Amino acid sequence: MTTSPFLTRRDLLTMIGKTAGASAMYSAMMSMGFAKASTFTSELELSDAPDGDSVLILGAGLAGMTAAYEMRKAGYDVTILEYNQRPGGRCYTIHSGDTVTDLSGETQHCEFAPGNYINPGPWRIPYHHYGVLHYCKKFGVKLEPFIQLNYNAYVHSSKAFGGKPQRVREVLTDVHGYTSELLAKATNQQALDDVLTKEDTEALLAQLDDWGHLTDDYKYQKSMKASEYRGYDDWPAAGLMPKPSPSEPLDFKELLHSGLWGMLLDYFNTSYQHTMFEPAGGMEEIARGFAGEVGDLIEYGRKVVRIEQSDNEVTVHYIDPERPDDVMTRKADWCVCTIPLSVLSQIPVEVSPAMREAIAAVPYASSVKTGLEFKRRFWEQDESIFGGVSYTDLPIKAISYPMYDYFSDGPAVLLGAYTIDDATSFTMSSMTARERVALAVSYGKQIHPQYEEEFISGVSWSWHLSPWSLGCYGLWTEELREAHYDTLCEIDNRLVLAGEHCSYIPAWLEGAILSGMDACKRLHEKATATARA
Amino acid sequence: MTTSPFLTRRDLLTMIGKTAGASAMYSAMMSMGFAKASTFTSELELSDAPDGDSVLILGAGLAGMTAAYEMRKAGYDVTILEYNQRPGGRCYTIHSGDTVTDLSGETQHCEFAPGNYINPGPWRIPYHHYGVLHYCKKFGVKLEPFIQLNYNAYVHSSKAFGGKPQRVREVLTDVHGYTSELLAKATNQQALDDVLTKEDTEALLAQLDDWGHLTDDYKYQKSMKASEYRGYDDWPAAGLMPKPSPSEPLDFKELLHSGLWGMLLDYFNTSYQHTMFEPAGGMEEIARGFAGEVGDLIEYGRKVVRIEQSDNEVTVHYIDPERPDDVMTRKADWCVCTIPLSVLSQIPVEVSPAMREAIAAVPYASSVKTGLEFKRRFWEQDESIFGGVSYTDLPIKAISYPMYDYFSDGPAVLLGAYTIDDATSFTMSSMTARERVALAVSYGKQIHPQYEEEFISGVSWSWHLSPWSLGCYGLWTEELREAHYDTLCEIDNRLVLAGEHCSYIPAWLEGAILSGMDACKRLHEKATATARA
Repeated sequence: MTTSPFLTRRDLLTMIGKTAGASAMYSAMMSMGFAKASTFTSELELSDAPDGDSVLILGAGLAGMTAAYEMRKAGYDVTILEYNQRPGGRCYTIHSGDTVTDLSGETQHCEFAPGNYINPGPWRIPYHHYGVLHYCKKFGVKLEPFIQLNYNAYVHSSKAFGGKPQRVREVLTDVHGYTSELLAKATNQQALDDVLTKEDTEALLAQLDDWGHLTDDYKYQKSMKASEYRGYDDWPAAGLMPKPSPSEPLDFKELLHSGLWGMLLDYFNTSYQHTMFEPAGGMEEIARGFAGEVGDLIEYGRKVVRIEQSDNEVTVHYIDPERPDDVMTRKADWCVCTIPLSVLSQIPVEVSPAMREAIAAVPYASSVKTGLEFKRRFWEQDESIFGGVSYTDLPIKAISYPMYDYFSDGPAVLLGAYTIDDATSFTMSSMTARERVALAVSYGKQIHPQYEEEFISGVSWSWHLSPWSLGCYGLWTEELREAHYDTLCEIDNRLVLAGEHCSYIPAWLEGAILSGMDACKRLHEKATATARA
Repeated sequence: MTTSPFLTRRDLLTMIGKTAGASAMYSAMMSMGFAKASTFTSELELSDAPDGDSVLILGAGLAGMTAAYEMRKAGYDVTILEYNQRPGGRCYTIHSGDTVTDLSGETQHCEFAPGNYINPGPWRIPYHHYGVLHYCKKFGVKLEPFIQLNYNAYVHSSKAFGGKPQRVREVLTDVHGYTSELLAKATNQQALDDVLTKEDTEALLAQLDDWGHLTDDYKYQKSMKASEYRGYDDWPAAGLMPKPSPSEPLDFKELLHSGLWGMLLDYFNTSYQHTMFEPAGGMEEIARGFAGEVGDLIEYGRKVVRIEQSDNEVTVHYIDPERPDDVMTRKADWCVCTIPLSVLSQIPVEVSPAMREAIAAVPYASSVKTGLEFKRRFWEQDESIFGGVSYTDLPIKAISYPMYDYFSDGPAVLLGAYTIDDATSFTMSSMTARERVALAVSYGKQIHPQYEEEFISGVSWSWHLSPWSLGCYGLWTEELREAHYDTLCEIDNRLVLAGEHCSYIPAWLEGAILSGMDACKRLHEKATATARA
């Protein structure tokens, strides 16, 4: 730690007013970093749409609703066609009382207690998803902190430490401790003298001592110093209660081979860094916020079956899924199509061969989420876990605890399994929802034995069995981006695609929103230029 | 990262129901870890107080109110004498509209906008402060998440990187990156072969590669991989917006000598680990929660001037500070004295010489907090900092952003300076509150140049100038504990001390509450035994 400078009162007072350069520095900082952190700087301010120009938007997910909001503001005549009977697409919440049916034909009735829910799709919002945060504020969506890193949650390997879950704080402190010990040892053996000066070596050893909570001879071992970070056997208390006592670090070799170290990474990734947010009441509140603005433009129960375009207009053919023989038609000057590529690739669309190829090229990631309701918040009451995410090598991968209504009594829902983009997701998709719920309970017991007594009911959603998305999100590789991304995003005659698949932030709401904004900006430019021509 | 096992549907299904041992494991886990994490297991269940026995409690802080609540429940006749005109002691909030006067005679009027406030004392509650969490729930105090670690907040050295604050995510990622690179280098040079087998070496290198986001030849450098953790130059966006681009790591040598590494430690300490909480509306809501239960027992404006005890009773002499010549007297069978040692050591108290010595032995830590109100939440709006704490080597030490009413417009208050237990705290205590506010603004500008334009007003509180505590908290050393702690906590005839000073968690509410509980438990045992004798 830095030591505090001993300043006299006079030293301090003379500092007041001495920072005349602050304003100049501010300008420099703004250009160096603040503003640059986001590609979203402000809402679009499109205006002066060509007189009478119409835009047909396919899909009332976040990309489609963003586009609808911005294009109407610019003066276009906007209509949204949506397959579902609700707005939001994958920005979705299964609430208590909902009935859901997937492609397999299985129907689930969500029997959670009133007010309880699960977000089967997106569920957390990073601080740098400026578009989402902007529109949530503008549309009155109340956001609350989402806890990703909870030091008292678990990382768990079924193959290490006798299958006993370990607290995040213990594993993280031990990783810092043992790596500091090893690096101090190498440094003291002059193994790094070719890159470190004497001063560097001294500074490095001092930092490692602090960072790794090492002993005077640079060992990481059981100590009050390390326990201040990893937790105690007897925690500091009061009066004549038992005195605090240190905890024993995990065995280094077992930790090294356990896989637990790698599980910590998601706590540090920009996608999941604090401060994160979630909407109060479920992710679908964001969809509702948008629909509060553009809901009047949405026609529900419209399944697009063909898209044609000419030099003058776009023609979209669609059906009501309840009456598939009755094909209807809608025409517009322009079209923003946000239909997932997994669905769009199965519809005849009149675009260039290159875009056709791009639409067909991107596979869709699989993801399955399972929500479990329990009689009480045993994770809070027994284990002092308030929100956050535990990770495990079991096929359920993660358990995430609710970040709302902390300390409340009565039934509560946790995310009991969350697989994404891996073989287990595909395997899970081959099971019924009821089987997946049973599986999540069965595996979860290894981490929380209270499941046995406390489980009430569950709901599971597989994105590959979702009729309106046929998968979770566009699974880009570097090669696919190189070959197809720009083509996919370009305007093709009078049609432009949008959605998380047209972004570098796949699967996230922000990708959908920024994509909707970018598509509108370019489409408006083209429409304006066309009108002038 | 662990790779996912490829499981067949049958593999998964056969797992269901295979965890019969779960219940057995649960018992084992409960005895191994869950319950042990806390010395607080449940509220006291004292009962059958000796008929007619009375207890006089000195101080209506958290220790005193806990004691009052528990002793009345047990059947004692309880009275609390409190110096201030409000409950809570150091569990205190200065609200908009409040007028406060310190020992120097300086009076401040808090001019914050209605609803805004600053907590001059305790301000955050760890997940393992079970006593606080228990009583908050019981007394209906609404708690909300407190963000300590915000990856987008700053660490700042006035002497490094041109004085430009660095984002926590950048420094943390670079620390992990460079230490991983150095350790991989040493490992590859066989410097650690005496402690690592071939398998260990392979596992270690694989983990360092992940942990440090290293290149194929184990270098930490500018890359998309590292930027996924430290942040990007151009963040991933959508459509045909600029493509994502990686950021440049900080220079290793400058980082090593900057002091920024050490500033990260507070993000990992058990005292500040997520998930933390704070009461909605300010820390004083906790005091109000307790007062809702025991407020009827409190007599305000009572300054204790002498404590006597005989074989049969305790006699407390006190004054109304407004009429100091009029000494009043109160008698009781027992006394729980929670007066801070800094004050108690100046009052005649009839206890053993050893306890008298203990009372006089413990110095009190200094601490100064300064709250600043600004016209708008520029830290959110310009810098995407939502809650959390930035650290600096400047005398203000820390800036903490409000963790409530995120995204709101209008004036907001941040903690603009927080010094504790160091020379700067003493120096600051020698300044007027107005000077301290000016100083906090002057220094804070180096981190947030927007201070210049946005500052409205400030309030500052020095605990050494607090008439009722004459300091912040009991500053124990190992030597002092060895010599005096047990004596201080023991019951002396009919009197027992309580408060954070009688705990291993000084300065924290939990220390006060646990101390109050422990003191009551032992006093009740003695009272019961005495009555039987």
